Amino acid sequence: MTHKTTEKEFLDIFNRLKGESGTHSPSLTDLLGECQFLKINIDACFLSNPYATDLFFEYLNNEVIQTNKLRNILEFYPSQNRSIAKSLSRQIDIEAKNIFIGNGAIEIIQAVFHQFATGRTLINIPTFSSYYEFIKNPQNIIFNQLKKEENYKLNIVEYIKIVKEQMPDTVVLINPNNPDGNFIDSKQLELLLLELVDIKNIILDESFVHFATNEEGDYQLISSDKLISKYPNLILIKSLSKDFGIAGVRCGYAIMNEEKVNTLLNNGYLWNSNGIAEYFFRLYTQSDFFEKYNNIRIRYILETQEFHRQLKKIPNIKIYSSQANFFLIELLNGKSASSVQAQLLYRYGIYVRNCEDKIGLDGEFLRIASRTLEQNMIIISALKDIL
Amino acid sequence: MTHKTTEKEFLDIFNRLKGESGTHSPSLTDLLGECQFLKINIDACFLSNPYATDLFFEYLNNEVIQTNKLRNILEFYPSQNRSIAKSLSRQIDIEAKNIFIGNGAIEIIQAVFHQFATGRTLINIPTFSSYYEFIKNPQNIIFNQLKKEENYKLNIVEYIKIVKEQMPDTVVLINPNNPDGNFIDSKQLELLLLELVDIKNIILDESFVHFATNEEGDYQLISSDKLISKYPNLILIKSLSKDFGIAGVRCGYAIMNEEKVNTLLNNGYLWNSNGIAEYFFRLYTQSDFFEKYNNIRIRYILETQEFHRQLKKIPNIKIYSSQANFFLIELLNGKSASSVQAQLLYRYGIYVRNCEDKIGLDGEFLRIASRTLEQNMIIISALKDIL
Repeated sequence: MTHKTTEKEFLDIFNRLKGESGTHSPSLTDLLGECQFLKINIDACFLSNPYATDLFFEYLNNEVIQTNKLRNILEFYPSQNRSIAKSLSRQIDIEAKNIFIGNGAIEIIQAVFHQFATGRTLINIPTFSSYYEFIKNPQNIIFNQLKKEENYKLNIVEYIKIVKEQMPDTVVLINPNNPDGNFIDSKQLELLLLELVDIKNIILDESFVHFATNEEGDYQLISSDKLISKYPNLILIKSLSKDFGIAGVRCGYAIMNEEKVNTLLNNGYLWNSNGIAEYFFRLYTQSDFFEKYNNIRIRYILETQEFHRQLKKIPNIKIYSSQANFFLIELLNGKSASSVQAQLLYRYGIYVRNCEDKIGLDGEFLRIASRTLEQNMIIISALKDIL
Repeated sequence: MTHKTTEKEFLDIFNRLKGESGTHSPSLTDLLGECQFLKINIDACFLSNPYATDLFFEYLNNEVIQTNKLRNILEFYPSQNRSIAKSLSRQIDIEAKNIFIGNGAIEIIQAVFHQFATGRTLINIPTFSSYYEFIKNPQNIIFNQLKKEENYKLNIVEYIKIVKEQMPDTVVLINPNNPDGNFIDSKQLELLLLELVDIKNIILDESFVHFATNEEGDYQLISSDKLISKYPNLILIKSLSKDFGIAGVRCGYAIMNEEKVNTLLNNGYLWNSNGIAEYFFRLYTQSDFFEKYNNIRIRYILETQEFHRQLKKIPNIKIYSSQANFFLIELLNGKSASSVQAQLLYRYGIYVRNCEDKIGLDGEFLRIASRTLEQNMIIISALKDIL
């Protein structure tokens, strides 16, 4: 006789796995391994454009699987870092000598902290936890608390003042920021870079920038990568797992000055891409693929904006404005984030991020990714039921 | 009108690409990109068991491609390092706390040199170049020249004497050694470990050990991983790209004491596996897969031994005895390794490793991998023609 796991028993398993994953959510593989009754219908923890994933698999299927090229891709050594940088260079119009290819953005973050950002580092909180977890000496971390009363939006003028007072070696900016989605526009960003020319390293993480829109609202792809020629202290980090929903492929890159790229490559990272990642990077430079991707990106932004409008109608929560593909949601009715997260998972198979482990957030917060239009509507309906 | 590339023109392109790849051979992707007329019929540079690659693709096709599970594997984040270590633990019968999963063995080599082997390091030459390339301060490298008159085989008694004189922080042993295939048997190895208990780090690279045979000649799988419980200074590195011919998947692991694993994981490497690598690690623990692999491994060893017998019949070359899946070949007729390598490539589409960039080798050397039985026979015949 099979025992049906109760909501309470489920909560215990979930909390234990969470503990084992540090400050990150447990991986779905781990979770499904232990809770075999569980069916994840919607993974709204996963910050990706699902339509771009469809597109990638359409190409992978046609170009690799159907043509029997998968064996070539997986049997032999992938190309080296510089060779993949050279092909990416054509797509993003940045010289290859300024490009460092990473085994996911997380490897780049780690590499940068090991090699360059070894001194005092100013980190705005709330943030993506890896940014302080990879700092070896905790005394080197300076936290800058973003103000809740300002909706956790960075106040540029105050920030410049703080940096000049503290004079850290390194500052970290995630733009749009994770977990709140606040965005520093290009004018403010350049003002900031101008003022901070004396800071050794400006780490700018644009992992979510494909989902941001500029003031003109024309849905042009935004990137600050060209600024590298003017600001040699800039280290721009770009995950591709968010834009394309291919986290299992492990693709990221960074733009930085030539000397820094050389330093990293002199310390390893020679063969840090796998065969599928190399295929992706080459596909990314294909104009037919990129054009289709761009249309899909705009479609997803529009749907994400609609998701925002629907979320705002739900009572007892506050939705923070976001230029990313997720929304920070504050629970205002006294329920804990943990209980709402577990209810969504157990009752609806909806997996959302509980932000209780995020330092710098004051209150009960969830972070919910925008998925497909249909899935977003199911999330809206589930939230309305629970809240 | 298409110009047919001459042997001379081909040599120029080949030498340029080689220069750009540092001390490693150019990747096949790079080479084929520039020399589109070239057809690689046999990649005898690639040190893998091709039958195991067939087996892996049979499983990948049946379990992943045909069942439409590839999307799951590539879309979502792979499990974290400790989770994959836990599943590998069952297969190799080593506690998970002693296992570190790497994005290929090369990542592990680099991590070990950044974190532990930061002092003076004794390296036997000839060797795999990454072992000294990843040492930041060249003054920390102590080379121990293996003697040509002893066929580059490590002399254990002399080696222990040298280590005790030099007292390096770290010693590196590749067993079987690359590029010569010499093997230290388990008795000698344990003698060595006993004598070197005061050395901080003993790096033992067993990437080719699946191809070695013990004195009993029963083709049992050899591994020194159990020695970790007796020798906490041991760091055992295992590439899986050689055994399974899946270099594009990027799988490696290391066995080391718990404290070292913790240090590495506190410095990153949290999500360093990709989705296909995670699939492979889980497959590796499946008994039906492993049993088939083991049969195929023994078949490949037998064929490699036959390849050795045939190579020995070729005049004007010396074949070094090898317990790995490749043979170091010295050219004795005055021809350069470079010219023989280019001839094999241009005329027969056979790609072999030219060892001219290997420090510690005195003479003209090629390293030739054992491939399938049929391919080995073609290599033999081509070598007979050229030499």
